[in-house]
Amino acid sequence: MVDFSKGLVPVIVQDYNTNQVLMLGYTNEEAYSKTLETRCVYFYSRSRDKLWKKGETSGNILKVKELYLDCDSDTVLIKALPEGPTCHTGETSCFFNQIV
Amino acid sequence: MVDFSKGLVPVIVQDYNTNQVLMLGYTNEEAYSKTLETRCVYFYSRSRDKLWKKGETSGNILKVKELYLDCDSDTVLIKALPEGPTCHTGETSCFFNQIV
Repeated sequence: MVDFSKGLVPVIVQDYNTNQVLMLGYTNEEAYSKTLETRCVYFYSRSRDKLWKKGETSGNILKVKELYLDCDSDTVLIKALPEGPTCHTGETSCFFNQIV
Repeated sequence: MVDFSKGLVPVIVQDYNTNQVLMLGYTNEEAYSKTLETRCVYFYSRSRDKLWKKGETSGNILKVKELYLDCDSDTVLIKALPEGPTCHTGETSCFFNQIV
């Protein structure tokens, strides 16, 4: 069981094949249930304040291969197969801005 | 520049050598500055409500090798060299509870 007592729960998405971290989004009870049910990644969009199927407009969906909870059940890790680039900028991963 | 306008910022820690996702913590301005300055991972502990050097009691520190921001600068990804297991349970990674 995911612990939603502190609010939205962060979801790390990692590429199932390459292990590259692709993005981080947030989930709530509804988005988490839809993800398990459909095996496609759903988030709760903080900016639009609503359920968001990743790729619903771009087509760049994320297919769930494995899903893990962390030791205190307040973070989700999904290993997924991405269809197309994950970042809205067209990059494979959202983490392309290297500081160190 | 990290965007702290929405509050604490999640930090994904990934093993520099294996690409395994080890844990997720949170950072604020102080923890982020200390991380850059010392090249050891500092978090802001939500439960203890204070700055927390990962490994300060266990010795299981995380040495920063690379650090990335995501496309909207509100998530940090650190590739680190862990000294010892990262999870307080003794597991290598906090994500040992597989759901799918």
